[in-house]
Amino acid sequence: MNGKNYSMLCDFYSLTMANAYWQQGKQKEIAYFDLFYRTVPDGGGFVIAAGLEQLVDYISNMRFTEEDISYLRGKGIFSEDFLDYLRNFRFSGDITAVAEGTPVFPNEPILTVRAPVMEAQLIETYALLCINHQSLIATKANRIVRAASGKPVLELGARRAHGADGAVIGARAAYIGGVSATSCVMSELEYIVPACGTMSHAWVQMFDNEYEAFASFCRQYPQNAVLLVDTYNVLDSGVPNAIRAFKEILLPQGITDFAIRLDSGDLSYLSAKSREILDKAGLTSCKIVASNSLDEFVIQDLERQGAKIDVYGVGERLITSKSAPVLGGVYKLVAVERGGNIMPKIKISENVSKITTPCPKKLYRLYRRTTGEAIADLLCVHDEEIDDSKPMELFDPQNPWRRKVVTDFTARLLHVLIFKNGECVYSLPSAAQVRGYCAEQVKTLWDEVKRFENPHRYYVDLSPKLWSIKQNLLKKDRL
Amino acid sequence: MNGKNYSMLCDFYSLTMANAYWQQGKQKEIAYFDLFYRTVPDGGGFVIAAGLEQLVDYISNMRFTEEDISYLRGKGIFSEDFLDYLRNFRFSGDITAVAEGTPVFPNEPILTVRAPVMEAQLIETYALLCINHQSLIATKANRIVRAASGKPVLELGARRAHGADGAVIGARAAYIGGVSATSCVMSELEYIVPACGTMSHAWVQMFDNEYEAFASFCRQYPQNAVLLVDTYNVLDSGVPNAIRAFKEILLPQGITDFAIRLDSGDLSYLSAKSREILDKAGLTSCKIVASNSLDEFVIQDLERQGAKIDVYGVGERLITSKSAPVLGGVYKLVAVERGGNIMPKIKISENVSKITTPCPKKLYRLYRRTTGEAIADLLCVHDEEIDDSKPMELFDPQNPWRRKVVTDFTARLLHVLIFKNGECVYSLPSAAQVRGYCAEQVKTLWDEVKRFENPHRYYVDLSPKLWSIKQNLLKKDRL
Repeated sequence: MNGKNYSMLCDFYSLTMANAYWQQGKQKEIAYFDLFYRTVPDGGGFVIAAGLEQLVDYISNMRFTEEDISYLRGKGIFSEDFLDYLRNFRFSGDITAVAEGTPVFPNEPILTVRAPVMEAQLIETYALLCINHQSLIATKANRIVRAASGKPVLELGARRAHGADGAVIGARAAYIGGVSATSCVMSELEYIVPACGTMSHAWVQMFDNEYEAFASFCRQYPQNAVLLVDTYNVLDSGVPNAIRAFKEILLPQGITDFAIRLDSGDLSYLSAKSREILDKAGLTSCKIVASNSLDEFVIQDLERQGAKIDVYGVGERLITSKSAPVLGGVYKLVAVERGGNIMPKIKISENVSKITTPCPKKLYRLYRRTTGEAIADLLCVHDEEIDDSKPMELFDPQNPWRRKVVTDFTARLLHVLIFKNGECVYSLPSAAQVRGYCAEQVKTLWDEVKRFENPHRYYVDLSPKLWSIKQNLLKKDRL
Repeated sequence: MNGKNYSMLCDFYSLTMANAYWQQGKQKEIAYFDLFYRTVPDGGGFVIAAGLEQLVDYISNMRFTEEDISYLRGKGIFSEDFLDYLRNFRFSGDITAVAEGTPVFPNEPILTVRAPVMEAQLIETYALLCINHQSLIATKANRIVRAASGKPVLELGARRAHGADGAVIGARAAYIGGVSATSCVMSELEYIVPACGTMSHAWVQMFDNEYEAFASFCRQYPQNAVLLVDTYNVLDSGVPNAIRAFKEILLPQGITDFAIRLDSGDLSYLSAKSREILDKAGLTSCKIVASNSLDEFVIQDLERQGAKIDVYGVGERLITSKSAPVLGGVYKLVAVERGGNIMPKIKISENVSKITTPCPKKLYRLYRRTTGEAIADLLCVHDEEIDDSKPMELFDPQNPWRRKVVTDFTARLLHVLIFKNGECVYSLPSAAQVRGYCAEQVKTLWDEVKRFENPHRYYVDLSPKLWSIKQNLLKKDRL
């Protein structure tokens, strides 16, 4: 999609390790890596997985050019046979992943890579970058959209994004999370995210007076005109001039679909007053768009105060996920293959929360059969099967004495096969399809899990088999 | 540089306004826009300007393809003559800007565009995006580097960046701000930011034991080996195994330039204990690299506690400027030309801090002649000249009764000419040159301005002429 080859967008250590694996005869050793996160940004209850499309694109197009090779040769530490290997590099592994738009919980593998260890490590940086960035923004967007209680939210943040991809792909992620449209034209062109936009203050200032600016704009764009009313004074000048323009230019054409936009001041007060003035003038169909440092908390407050806002425009606080601008996804070795056997691996840490769960895994989501509600997730060892026709006992891996029998559920495997032997076997859905799937999946979660602050912790349980493998490795490796 | 055409990375309103300006015969009207910010992120004293190179690149390569044109035609609101205009679009205006790496203060124009209004508005989004993003990261990097009191800082954040540019160009900005190197290979390839890196936990886990992993690595990379010692247990296993590998493999070759890396746990305690063990083993030359959620505040604390860290690795908190991930640069109309006259424009706002300063301006920095210290900045109207051979009275525009006479100073114009009639006339310095200039300019600032919290407000004064133009417009436009 992007047309750019990002093979060299990796951490330098990916290359030094790959070269060293190669030199030490480990080039064929198969490893399994899980990509997962540990903490939900903003203290929320879940993350919306996103970024898979860009990862697929990257892996499918991975190749090292002669320019890359000579740059690496210049480092003086890479062997010629390794550089030859890079020259013909193609990813040859398998990847499974949750579909984009799936709500995922801490420590669940968003994707799992099975590949020769050097390949698995070469894609590490980009895989993390894609998934961390887009999941972060999709998650923030989803919070903001839920705060707006059904009113459309527009993504207007390109100018404050962290670079071009931050803007263009960030808008894609925001759309997946639920926003209705973006200001960023390139996102529509590349990812079919609907683009929208109207006028800036400069437009108003370029005319001798505000009325003339509004009138010109209505003449130019009679359909869905949105007039920015805060260049001089919202209530004394902006709204009255907008009303005059609507009445003189649009109403006579039978057009009643128009709006004003507030971009500063107290949005609650100004929207209520503007609504009053508009209604008194008979323009009850005129919508009010509001923007200015909005996020889920401000929007929730505005809604609570009964602000008369019909559409929210959200900028920097969405496109950078300002209140929590990092999703800390990691990429950890969970197993290696030796002589055809899969040997689980664990990573101990001085920080207990950084201890990993070993093994290639299956990730099931259990839904109540009658209501479709998500009850719990279950992580099993790759060779286990869940029989959802029988009751099943779950237990909390953090407090293994807490047990619960679930009945009358369906179990769905969340991972789908994306790459098989280096070939992409997955048909990527459109951003609009992902957005629809996301909305539908978020609906299956309890309201308690969806709370913005102090949400209920969703149950992510380990199968007894997986739990004991982890415990045994912990004992063994803790020297 | 980037090889990608970003002409369509604009807000949709840039195109709707451009089309409307065209239709309304305003296509030749010349406008002046200032790009500036209002608030320093993190409550700091200044921002390091960065991002100009990417903006130059974008403007020089701006063109609308046939694909762009047909996409726009599909919208049904753009006239064919406007689309024809876009087909042949080349930027034709003038741009002046402060050099990259310059410390800049609130409300100072980082750049000024003089161009036909539609052109000036077409470049708005990308100009803001470039300058906001890179200035944000350069500023954060500069804070972190200053906290490390002379010890090298490495930028390791690619995996948590907001998209590919966030990583690659973010590393460039961090380098400008003062970091020594980056983990991101592509940043070296594209922007000659030195790249570095060693091993991940997975490397250690791929071997039967930690010692074998370390020994293999030292055999492979005897120069500057950095061993990651926290996969199992830093003090009981990691450090002793590293010492054994250094002694058995590197010391016999006469190599004493190596290091260990800590990536979890209490870095103050672990670094002190590791230092002790290393020194006892006679490895006083072994350096200690530390990383794990570092930023200027944590580093300042570690330094204060006497942590035995020689090199700091900084990831997500730098590449996203986590504690303050937005620089709120804006792009505002400050004047128009009518019949050869420059007419100043002001933007009033319900939020007083959003009121702009009109006129195309000159930005001077006054340095004390004897010491080279920066005393104050002065904004003048474009046609004013400063005579630095005579004493000059400055006054604070927020408190105009506060006056001060400065003597014995040199006045330097901070803006340089970048584009003249659409031609780039500026020779871009390398990232290393910008980095050097930045360090030198930061040195000219008082320590009080460089404080991380509650810094002294640096003086940015208006000339009496500029101040009265602003006051008059305020009175006139405030209806």
